[in-house]
Amino acid sequence: MRMYDIIMKKRNGGELSKEEIDFFVEGYTKGTIPDYQVSALMMAVYFQKMTERETYYLTMAMAGSGDLLDLSAIQGIKVDKHSTGGVGDKTSLALTPMVAACGIPVAKMSGRGLGHTGGTIDKLESFPGFTTALTTQQFIHNVNSIGIAIMGQTADLAPADKKLYALRDVTATVDNMSLIASSIMSKKLAAGADRIVLDVKTGSGAFMKQEEDAKALAEEMVKIGKNAGRKTIAVISDMDQPLGFAVGNILEVKEAIDTLKGNGPADFVELCLTLGTQMLLAGGKASDAKKARTMLEDTITSGSALQKLSEFVAAQGGDADDVFHPERFPEAAIQREIQAPEDGYITAIVCDEVGICSLILGGGRETKESEIDLTVGIILKKKKGDYVQKGDVLAVIHANDEAKAAEASARYLNACKISGQKPVLPALIREIIS
Amino acid sequence: MRMYDIIMKKRNGGELSKEEIDFFVEGYTKGTIPDYQVSALMMAVYFQKMTERETYYLTMAMAGSGDLLDLSAIQGIKVDKHSTGGVGDKTSLALTPMVAACGIPVAKMSGRGLGHTGGTIDKLESFPGFTTALTTQQFIHNVNSIGIAIMGQTADLAPADKKLYALRDVTATVDNMSLIASSIMSKKLAAGADRIVLDVKTGSGAFMKQEEDAKALAEEMVKIGKNAGRKTIAVISDMDQPLGFAVGNILEVKEAIDTLKGNGPADFVELCLTLGTQMLLAGGKASDAKKARTMLEDTITSGSALQKLSEFVAAQGGDADDVFHPERFPEAAIQREIQAPEDGYITAIVCDEVGICSLILGGGRETKESEIDLTVGIILKKKKGDYVQKGDVLAVIHANDEAKAAEASARYLNACKISGQKPVLPALIREIIS
Repeated sequence: MRMYDIIMKKRNGGELSKEEIDFFVEGYTKGTIPDYQVSALMMAVYFQKMTERETYYLTMAMAGSGDLLDLSAIQGIKVDKHSTGGVGDKTSLALTPMVAACGIPVAKMSGRGLGHTGGTIDKLESFPGFTTALTTQQFIHNVNSIGIAIMGQTADLAPADKKLYALRDVTATVDNMSLIASSIMSKKLAAGADRIVLDVKTGSGAFMKQEEDAKALAEEMVKIGKNAGRKTIAVISDMDQPLGFAVGNILEVKEAIDTLKGNGPADFVELCLTLGTQMLLAGGKASDAKKARTMLEDTITSGSALQKLSEFVAAQGGDADDVFHPERFPEAAIQREIQAPEDGYITAIVCDEVGICSLILGGGRETKESEIDLTVGIILKKKKGDYVQKGDVLAVIHANDEAKAAEASARYLNACKISGQKPVLPALIREIIS
Repeated sequence: MRMYDIIMKKRNGGELSKEEIDFFVEGYTKGTIPDYQVSALMMAVYFQKMTERETYYLTMAMAGSGDLLDLSAIQGIKVDKHSTGGVGDKTSLALTPMVAACGIPVAKMSGRGLGHTGGTIDKLESFPGFTTALTTQQFIHNVNSIGIAIMGQTADLAPADKKLYALRDVTATVDNMSLIASSIMSKKLAAGADRIVLDVKTGSGAFMKQEEDAKALAEEMVKIGKNAGRKTIAVISDMDQPLGFAVGNILEVKEAIDTLKGNGPADFVELCLTLGTQMLLAGGKASDAKKARTMLEDTITSGSALQKLSEFVAAQGGDADDVFHPERFPEAAIQREIQAPEDGYITAIVCDEVGICSLILGGGRETKESEIDLTVGIILKKKKGDYVQKGDVLAVIHANDEAKAAEASARYLNACKISGQKPVLPALIREIIS
């Protein structure tokens, strides 16, 4: 088998066989097939697309290119949750304790943030002492004893995907549904969960700006899960403005804690309940959606979810009490109010721009090597559809540098559109695909 | 400027600017832009094509990536001739002395053969002592003193094309008219001629199997020449069967000498006269095609072309007398006749297969490093349209190895199609594009 023939076949619109896909993924991972042949193939895939079968084979080949996490030592149906990424998306922080409190074993691998989207691990590290550097043994032990553990992605989880994504990123071959879907799903499948609930974001803060693209991606991923025998459900949710009010690591942790105390923002609570419902149904913990929702709401009113979060934080090196004393978290030195320049309705808060404001303040990573400042960020005071009067506070910038605070404020103001016309708000939950 | 943006622009169907094309060609030549980005761009070009303007910019950027041969020290209009390659194509050997004898200064760079097509330099090296390793100074001196010189391509002639072609060759991105045309024309433009006559082959022995592809390529090259201010004429000629009767280095040299003595095969003579006419017209040596043709025929009847060949051979290290004594050339040890297996008309001699026979015998290069045997080859005794009876000799294999002779014979027999139906023969000269 020759890589040249594989490129030619795809270039001419042919369907690659399992053997051909395995050959190229294995060769690329081992380094026997060079970057320049793979990038040519990726560009051919961009133009000729991949069939459902090819996409499934590619996903399985990438999932199998490194370690496959064996979660069989964990009792019960393991349900993983994955978000395609957004701004203010602290869902894992609140949702995982909620479902764990309902008896779903949470054995989750998470990543760090890059660019304008935050990462769960960075947020969790707001708890002093907290670490996600667990051995697989500790990880499994924690899930079995307290029902929840989150570890960082090991270097050898789907290494083919890692290498391929880095190449696609510099050769303008990222934008293909099959390639995006297989990249996400290869890591999820390698991470060993039995069921997968996907939160596919759409809107100005999402990777998929257009809802039809988000839907297409969701469908691709659900098909891969089905072909792999791991039931996958995708929830398409709004990311056209930040989720909740808080953007920034410690600020988001505090909002997640507030949510588990029953004081969460309406949109964020609704998203947690929707995703949680799907997780409980997939994990066989509830017989219907209504019961699942009630179970989840009970974890908040009873305080069991907050209790679960404290156990989880303690089990991974943090102080359990921090969860009950969020006032202990450090605050940024500067808190600068952004005021409405005119009267009117907020018609848009361009969401990736808000992510960039957080990046400017030092709350995100421009490159993988960037150090992040956990205290900075933005607290939104008004959201889309709200009516404001000139001088009303739109948001509060939390910063540790005056120049950066000024730059972020100007940028936020520019991202916040005000008009006399009341906007029609899109639904938070657009569709559930399974 | 970023290579990523250039790939993205072409991927999305945009037209690259001169600055963008210069940036990528220069960066790739210097090694600051990696192979994997260039191969992705080439695949995007395969799908999105290039405009006439882009093709011209690419050609000029590649032509300018290394040495530009300065032929201004040579008096008169320099007319170069280039063939896209074929089997039994010894045209340069006969044609260049003919046009040189008419007063066209011939200052030509040639290449070696690769794969099933032969190269002019290999053929010329059949003359003992002959070398194409001339300095530019010697080269120009020879043209000024005897009217003709042929040198090997210098390493620094259009190095961008060399690097890009090698990459395209392993990434299935060769088949694009703009890229093929710019590759050929960049070398021709860098080699300094004022006018260019192209012999674009079509048929089973040519790179362009289909006549419409040959025509499209010819048109692309003529347009590039026009844009570059170097008048270019393309002759589309048949390569569906070998040209003349001889295939193999020394065998072809002898046929070229025979041709200059007035005993050439009809098709080969016709091609030389057609191409020569275009060269004389382009070089201003004749006022119309009829006069040009008569001048060229006169170089044969008068013996001036044969005389010119002998001067040329002597000036580059060979023995002038060899031209008048072709019986001095060594012969292969084995001469094996291939007989017709049945009565009928020859309807096809699959041309690249005949080239492969020569390759098998040792007369061509499988890789750039292969040593070649100058004595081996095939002498065709019958050509397309000829009627043969069972047992008639179709061709004679010249070999130095019995096993190879047997393999080549079987392959030749298979390439030679015989049928009861008399075939319609396509014209040798299909079209002249200028």
